[in-house]
Amino acid sequence: MSAPKITDVVVTPVAVLDPPLLNASGVHEPYQLRAVIELRTDEGVVGLSEAYGDTPTLNNLRKAAPSLIGLSVFDLNGLTQRVAVTLAGVTPSTLTDLVGKASLQKTVGQAIGAFEVACFDAQGKATGLRVCDLLGGAVREEVPYSAYLFYRWAKHPAGATGPDYEDDDWGDALDPAGIVAQAQRMVDTYGFASLKLKGGVFDPDAEADAIEALRAAFPGHPLRLDPNANWSVETSKRIAKRLEGLLEYLEDPTGGNPGMGEVARATSLPLATNMCVTAFQEIPEAVALDSVRVVLSDHHYWGGFRASLKLAGICETFGWGLSMHSNTHLGISLAAMTHLAAAVPNLNYACDTHSPWTREDVVRPGALEWNTATGSLLVPGGAGLGVELDYDALERLNRQYEDCGVRVRDDASAMRLAEPGWELRTPRF
Amino acid sequence: MSAPKITDVVVTPVAVLDPPLLNASGVHEPYQLRAVIELRTDEGVVGLSEAYGDTPTLNNLRKAAPSLIGLSVFDLNGLTQRVAVTLAGVTPSTLTDLVGKASLQKTVGQAIGAFEVACFDAQGKATGLRVCDLLGGAVREEVPYSAYLFYRWAKHPAGATGPDYEDDDWGDALDPAGIVAQAQRMVDTYGFASLKLKGGVFDPDAEADAIEALRAAFPGHPLRLDPNANWSVETSKRIAKRLEGLLEYLEDPTGGNPGMGEVARATSLPLATNMCVTAFQEIPEAVALDSVRVVLSDHHYWGGFRASLKLAGICETFGWGLSMHSNTHLGISLAAMTHLAAAVPNLNYACDTHSPWTREDVVRPGALEWNTATGSLLVPGGAGLGVELDYDALERLNRQYEDCGVRVRDDASAMRLAEPGWELRTPRF
Repeated sequence: MSAPKITDVVVTPVAVLDPPLLNASGVHEPYQLRAVIELRTDEGVVGLSEAYGDTPTLNNLRKAAPSLIGLSVFDLNGLTQRVAVTLAGVTPSTLTDLVGKASLQKTVGQAIGAFEVACFDAQGKATGLRVCDLLGGAVREEVPYSAYLFYRWAKHPAGATGPDYEDDDWGDALDPAGIVAQAQRMVDTYGFASLKLKGGVFDPDAEADAIEALRAAFPGHPLRLDPNANWSVETSKRIAKRLEGLLEYLEDPTGGNPGMGEVARATSLPLATNMCVTAFQEIPEAVALDSVRVVLSDHHYWGGFRASLKLAGICETFGWGLSMHSNTHLGISLAAMTHLAAAVPNLNYACDTHSPWTREDVVRPGALEWNTATGSLLVPGGAGLGVELDYDALERLNRQYEDCGVRVRDDASAMRLAEPGWELRTPRF
Repeated sequence: MSAPKITDVVVTPVAVLDPPLLNASGVHEPYQLRAVIELRTDEGVVGLSEAYGDTPTLNNLRKAAPSLIGLSVFDLNGLTQRVAVTLAGVTPSTLTDLVGKASLQKTVGQAIGAFEVACFDAQGKATGLRVCDLLGGAVREEVPYSAYLFYRWAKHPAGATGPDYEDDDWGDALDPAGIVAQAQRMVDTYGFASLKLKGGVFDPDAEADAIEALRAAFPGHPLRLDPNANWSVETSKRIAKRLEGLLEYLEDPTGGNPGMGEVARATSLPLATNMCVTAFQEIPEAVALDSVRVVLSDHHYWGGFRASLKLAGICETFGWGLSMHSNTHLGISLAAMTHLAAAVPNLNYACDTHSPWTREDVVRPGALEWNTATGSLLVPGGAGLGVELDYDALERLNRQYEDCGVRVRDDASAMRLAEPGWELRTPRF
């Protein structure tokens, strides 16, 4: 075998239908954006990947892409160097504040990660090996995911929907009964064990009521609550006290390592984060302040698979648990998340996924199979990521991107269509 | 390509001639022991590796070996699990206290690392890729090494030598002039830039005299001194003060993270270690006490290449420098060290090597080529580690192992042949 070298990098933005999911930053718009990356090579194999599709990310991917021509798909250090050099002067950006502060390290990491996943897919296709095998081997052939529960409306507000938008059939979920019903449907459909509620939306006691209702309805399911740092330290301490014994972890009740550390000292609940530890440079402070017990990794902004393995090693070394974060994604990213989770021994919490909320995809059906008895995704068996691009779907969803007009994620503006005076305030409670 | 599966594991102990190098634990015996590992596979490729050859290590390797039959050479997580399970009950052992305390983690890591390197060699031979390419790509095609200077005698003491032992032609080095002469020969032969003196042998001020003599003779060469934790905290502080501005780092002046932290606070010299941070479980204490600035990695006891990458990630995250430790080794380990160092961007100090002291090898000549202008080893170009076993040499050195009678490393007993009353005391000064 000779190592395939990159001859062309194709970045295609797509828009996919998304329901009105509520969160601390507002509400999801009718379309979420993703970018599909194809690394073409001189050996004919094509490496696939998926990234954020907002304009800053697209600009960065396209700015870095030409530097990759000629690179071996095995030369991941070369990839890192070339992307870092190309993007050294860009303005730091992040898809959303819900994944913490923007930084150059994270911005560059997003581009590295996007291309690196495609390199691994190409490596797998060139060698006949699965990506999980290239990452050290699968320690599990089925990766457990959690039910990602959202407060939501039945419909997007007037003025929000784009061309041909059709509401989904989930209805609304705005109180404990609505959340329990949503959880029941997810558990019935997928078999999820862990249940995660996206909080930071309503009065914290109302969200704690929802957790208690979930506990009553699902006595054996581990529960999580994620207020996205929308609570003050005092509120966090009070609600943490109320929920002790009910959660496997409380995720980002408040913002920043100092505040998280203060909450951690006041509760027996393990605190988890994908907001105050989202880049390597934030880790020393978290260690010094003992502010978190669990980190939610995400190869999309940590810098790819190898960076995720590095994070996993740090978590193991410092006795932190490891879970996995999700933004809205399609099948390429789901395959990537699954291969990574399969190959990381200490990733011992069920991973987050937005899969149940996504009605469209760019991959051909069949490769991503759920074990609906356990809420687990089977690790795809094919070479590389094990998924194939559906070029008709890609073209259709790219047209939808062109037509829908959405170019960055903006949950706050979407929220103002329903509540005109709504302002982003952190913490709100 | 299909992934080669292990069908046989052959562990062959060898003994190689070694000069009387002095250190804190005594003196090197006339023979040092290594183990050569061959992983044979169903695809015909054979993966090579090299490990310690002392009896406890050999026993552990042989105990774990049968568990590897049937394993894919890509399933490194499976390798880790199988070795960890097999060796869960063994008595912790380490080749020498010069690499820190024995622990189960390090003992298991030694066996994992030994087999993992052979797996990578087999992966490379199966794919046609170099090991450095499988580790993320070479960021340097030449790996700088340092001159490893030792106080030494010209001959082993009476009673120490085995059959057919011939003294080498280096003569003794017992004072500053001797060390400078030794350094000059190494620099002339190899082109080494950094010079490292193994200390902890004589009065600390005499060793500081040697450093000053080296500085005078080699004004542009970075210098290091390694007393192997043979100094008290007070002595360390005093000598560190004396050597400020003269060393790129001071290695393990005293033992343990608390003592190292105390010395660190008293000097501007960066402290390096391969004694108080030698396993992942020792890292949190070092971070908390801010006891070290540079870690010397060693794939032989950290657990292989992947563990070394994990360590490198931790060093990068916490702002620690990264260098590389060496025990006496042969060409397989030198190739392994070189591939690893080539693929770790933040390994930014010249690596240690005992190469100049070793007169025998198990690999065929030609693959390991020095750039004698820079003291760097060229990364071998062949698939895998890029070295081939010389089966005649292996047989001869295995016979030497059988004949020489040495079974564990015991520098103290060797020392007592010259100084009957000599006792190991730490710290001595």
